[in-house]
Amino acid sequence: MNESVPAIEHPFADLVGLEVVGRGEGACTTALTVRDEHRNPHGVVHGAVIYALADTGMGGALTSVLEEGKSCSTIEIKINYFRPGVGGRLICETRVINRSRKTGAMESDVRDEVGRLLARATGTFMIIEREVSPDI
Amino acid sequence: MNESVPAIEHPFADLVGLEVVGRGEGACTTALTVRDEHRNPHGVVHGAVIYALADTGMGGALTSVLEEGKSCSTIEIKINYFRPGVGGRLICETRVINRSRKTGAMESDVRDEVGRLLARATGTFMIIEREVSPDI
Amino acid sequence: MNESVPAIEHPFADLVGLEVVGRGEGACTTALTVRDEHRNPHGVVHGAVIYALADTGMGGALTSVLEEGKSCSTIEIKINYFRPGVGGRLICETRVINRSRKTGAMESDVRDEVGRLLARATGTFMIIEREVSPDI
Amino acid sequence: MNESVPAIEHPFADLVGLEVVGRGEGACTTALTVRDEHRNPHGVVHGAVIYALADTGMGGALTSVLEEGKSCSTIEIKINYFRPGVGGRLICETRVINRSRKTGAMESDVRDEVGRLLARATGTFMIIEREVSPDI
Repeated sequence: MNESVPAIEHPFADLVGLEVVGRGEGACTTALTVRDEHRNPHGVVHGAVIYALADTGMGGALTSVLEEGKSCSTIEIKINYFRPGVGGRLICETRVINRSRKTGAMESDVRDEVGRLLARATGTFMIIEREVSPDI
Repeated sequence: MNESVPAIEHPFADLVGLEVVGRGEGACTTALTVRDEHRNPHGVVHGAVIYALADTGMGGALTSVLEEGKSCSTIEIKINYFRPGVGGRLICETRVINRSRKTGAMESDVRDEVGRLLARATGTFMIIEREVSPDI
Repeated sequence: MNESVPAIEHPFADLVGLEVVGRGEGACTTALTVRDEHRNPHGVVHGAVIYALADTGMGGALTSVLEEGKSCSTIEIKINYFRPGVGGRLICETRVINRSRKTGAMESDVRDEVGRLLARATGTFMIIEREVSPDI
Repeated sequence: MNESVPAIEHPFADLVGLEVVGRGEGACTTALTVRDEHRNPHGVVHGAVIYALADTGMGGALTSVLEEGKSCSTIEIKINYFRPGVGGRLICETRVINRSRKTGAMESDVRDEVGRLLARATGTFMIIEREVSPDI
């Protein structure tokens, strides 16, 4: 996995503190350090924060194997939660489990910093032609 | 639906600008106004923002029908995306579609301000005894 | 909904006793009468029988709105079970909830003959060009 | 994995030709040999047949780690299809990926006899007290 990830403008990642820490060959590692602003009324990390790690990781894993000029968009993701995130560093490992001409399927495991499985997600992305200006 | 929603500390909702605008009788309406910080590198609303509307709405809808002393936690959510969120106000209508003694199942429709369906989610929550101090 | 459904060879439907009882305008009704051979070791209807009603219904609903020469294949289905099927007639109502150029999204409600909701499914199908000979 | 699987009455498995070929320590292998009666109108194996391998495998994997007197029922399963089943022997490997006091989460890979991945499923089962007479 190529640890050098190009800097792309990603406002939502900045808002949430989500980092792409590795990406390449159909895999992607995303991570974030839990802050109080990630918490829900129960005091644990909001499910959408965990989900953001998986969704962003799936895009990163799939685009790492796409041909020049291709991009992707999420068709669907299912996420199962096993235990709450309470603090520290959350790490999400994603890999492409199937790729066809039109779609990619990925799975993500989100773990806390001692390795406990917090959530597992599976998703399908549509592979699309990238518009000329991908950032707008 | 009771439009008066009690103010609960919800740091992640504050971070993202997510509002619970109505809640009661097994239904919940969540909403947010798109800001630039919600965008992904493609310039559209990040999937996790849409997801946050559904996840929070499901909790709100289910707790509106739970007995005193009960709470809930997400078992799983699947979300399907149909078109990107590009701006304006996003509104998510959630309702309980089944409730058993141990679980609740909910569905959410996320629409833009002209009513186009952006996403549909279905999820299952576990019904649990609320801990004495729910905010920690 | 057009109640006249053309007879197509469907060996698995024949094996399981699954009927397409109505189909048209983005909706499809499938049904079956529970037989002992549908039961699992617990004596209730096997989940795959309920699932078959939804999967077949989703294909029927989507193809009812496809243009000549198009067909479809299942990308993914999630099914939630709420109560077991124990006997009598099971009826599944499916409708298209979104259609894009490349995909269709459907939802299915499976009910027993007194109208209790047994299961809810949501799925995504890819829209494809039909091969010249669809049966091979 | 214990290859000796006790004979339990399973009418639907008999109807479809579904076999539990190995089971133990949180894993389960199910299989079937494709017959013409498994086919849909497109001539390929009906999605519900593939699904049946996963659903039955998940129950087998989870019950292999449950305490005496416990049983389980399906909360939800999502299945992604990658390529059609066309013939030969289909083999489904299932394993428990998380177990809590109240639920188990499983994943299943369905492959054809040359090892190509046809489908991946993830599901959640509720762990319940077994009724005195489990077959009724």
